[in-house]
Amino acid sequence: MAKGTFLKDPDIDVFIRFSPSYSRKDMENLGLEIARSVMPDGYESYAEHPYLRGVVNGFRVDIVPCYMVDDPSKKISAVDRTPFHTEYVKENLRDEQKDEVRLLKAFMKGIGVYGAEARVEGFSGYLCELLVIKYGSFMSVLKHASQWKKRTYLHLGNGGARFNAPLTFIDPVDSNRNVASAVSEQSKSLFTIASREFLQEPKLTFFFPNPVKVREEKEILAEIEKRKTRSYAIIFPKPDVVDDVLYPQIKRTMRAFESILQEFIPLHTFYYVDDSHVVFLLELERDELPHIMKHQGPPVWHENAEKFMERWRNEALRGPYVLGNRLYVDRERKHRYLKDYLIKALQAYALGKEFEKRKGDMLIEKLEDVLHRLDLKNISEFLYFKFPWER
Amino acid sequence: MAKGTFLKDPDIDVFIRFSPSYSRKDMENLGLEIARSVMPDGYESYAEHPYLRGVVNGFRVDIVPCYMVDDPSKKISAVDRTPFHTEYVKENLRDEQKDEVRLLKAFMKGIGVYGAEARVEGFSGYLCELLVIKYGSFMSVLKHASQWKKRTYLHLGNGGARFNAPLTFIDPVDSNRNVASAVSEQSKSLFTIASREFLQEPKLTFFFPNPVKVREEKEILAEIEKRKTRSYAIIFPKPDVVDDVLYPQIKRTMRAFESILQEFIPLHTFYYVDDSHVVFLLELERDELPHIMKHQGPPVWHENAEKFMERWRNEALRGPYVLGNRLYVDRERKHRYLKDYLIKALQAYALGKEFEKRKGDMLIEKLEDVLHRLDLKNISEFLYFKFPWER
Repeated sequence: MAKGTFLKDPDIDVFIRFSPSYSRKDMENLGLEIARSVMPDGYESYAEHPYLRGVVNGFRVDIVPCYMVDDPSKKISAVDRTPFHTEYVKENLRDEQKDEVRLLKAFMKGIGVYGAEARVEGFSGYLCELLVIKYGSFMSVLKHASQWKKRTYLHLGNGGARFNAPLTFIDPVDSNRNVASAVSEQSKSLFTIASREFLQEPKLTFFFPNPVKVREEKEILAEIEKRKTRSYAIIFPKPDVVDDVLYPQIKRTMRAFESILQEFIPLHTFYYVDDSHVVFLLELERDELPHIMKHQGPPVWHENAEKFMERWRNEALRGPYVLGNRLYVDRERKHRYLKDYLIKALQAYALGKEFEKRKGDMLIEKLEDVLHRLDLKNISEFLYFKFPWER
Repeated sequence: MAKGTFLKDPDIDVFIRFSPSYSRKDMENLGLEIARSVMPDGYESYAEHPYLRGVVNGFRVDIVPCYMVDDPSKKISAVDRTPFHTEYVKENLRDEQKDEVRLLKAFMKGIGVYGAEARVEGFSGYLCELLVIKYGSFMSVLKHASQWKKRTYLHLGNGGARFNAPLTFIDPVDSNRNVASAVSEQSKSLFTIASREFLQEPKLTFFFPNPVKVREEKEILAEIEKRKTRSYAIIFPKPDVVDDVLYPQIKRTMRAFESILQEFIPLHTFYYVDDSHVVFLLELERDELPHIMKHQGPPVWHENAEKFMERWRNEALRGPYVLGNRLYVDRERKHRYLKDYLIKALQAYALGKEFEKRKGDMLIEKLEDVLHRLDLKNISEFLYFKFPWER
């Protein structure tokens, strides 16, 4: 708000800056007291430390107590740096560039990479501002971003620390911080391809994508049949935790499913969250494995080689035999069907904590069998995914 | 024969050693002339240079002209070294060790790793002799071999050159030569596991394996049905070339099939050669792929990204979408069935030369459909493979 680069419906953050002579406890308590006196309907919330969240004149307002340090690299609490960011942008972003920032933010929002929160893993507002300061204009940011390679290292001035991140933008107020640390490879790549595409053919849909085209149940069932793949829905009750806890666990859990179900050859995955459920969707090349499987044993010289021979000598369907320097047998498979296989594997495999706790309430079904219970807009996006600007 | 370490039915090699003052041509012509005068029924053959092969008193005899060089490392033709090997073994193998060599050779023959020829890729007679010279006895060779690791480097005395081979045994008459260069990782590993097994429980079947148990057609068909895998036979007319040319090409061609058919998930392969055919056998997890396939595009920043978007924007079944830093689409698959898929792929893929030439005569069929034309002993070994000593 102070920087004049907000989109419509902005959130307003107000910082109350304390001298470092206050103790942490006093700073927090006094800060909240002051905050409650100006926003009595606010409710207390907690990130690294407490703040008060409320609504004033229709705007969401956070009032955040912090320290007024001399140097942002000497911050005491996590939010002490933010006022320096505001200062930096006010000093370095020219008036005519404010609309360039707004364009960039709207573009990022349209393609789904705006926001540093865990759900998005994208570009913060401050990062958008720095990109415009660095490159001058919205179009110039896109021109550069369309060429960003696997590792991109940006700064304003003298550089700074090295980070193992797809995108690094050294914070001009603290050279040991990467402003783009939240940006995933996926979000960075999406921004790169969207930039190229926009430069090729600018369209309003980059800023305001059309909604996903919702297919009817009948069409979806016919498509599943035609593809000869197997699609499954894995449904959990929604854990009651904040998004920044929930989404990393969703992603970890999806990776676990993909890894467990490797042999069924996952083709595509998707998830969505509604009021009461988290729904994982997987399309796989098959849901049934042969009766016989290859089973790897130890290297021939290993002390367990003899034990392996003993175990399988008479029980293998084929072998033991040697490939390279290892023993193998082909043996009967215990769990041939995807559902059995997953349930068995989950006994020994930890999902994200909140999902691990709720394993007992997990439901796994063929997509076609639970389609009536699912949200057809999300199922349509899963089966017919297109970039938002292509819809 | 000269070394006294032969098994029954040995081959006899006779070397005619010429002074290096003879030209190569004279050495070869005079050598063959002398050879023909003592073995008039022999026929001329050719390895690196010509020799005369015949049968004398029921023994196969090769008469080989070569040079008598002072130092085997200064050999002029490839066979000049052999008489030095004979000399070395005669001088270094004690009388009571000759039977140890015979045991070792018979053991290797029984488990299928005796012979340096391309068909076997195993241990030459000379290598067996050196192993007994090094370790003292048959049992001692087995004790050491059962512990051989991924790379094994052996020598008698001062070592020699380094080789990138699973097994190296420096030739005591030429430290720049690896006597074990023909030994494949497979043969070495087989010898290692057989050694461990024999030490655990010595059995006559290591030397004299029982024949493969031949299954009836009915039993084989039931087994194929039960496994839920797909087995195919690929049949070529037998190329009219010597074994040392044929077998490397068979192995190369099998690797090509495995690589082409990766998506069908090969479980096991086997081949056999009869009087008129080479038969490749493959058991795979499936022979049909889904209608939809994942198709990898360029990285998002690549100059071809735009072209990829253009090509697939409206034609993909799903996407384009981004994974990591790359574009992908899920698109229709053209060749879903194994047979079509292989035939299509072979248009762009070179097999071993002799098989490449005969692609037009290639027959590929489900195993069950050509079972009546195939050798049930080999099919039985393919489907129910066991180590020879385990039969």
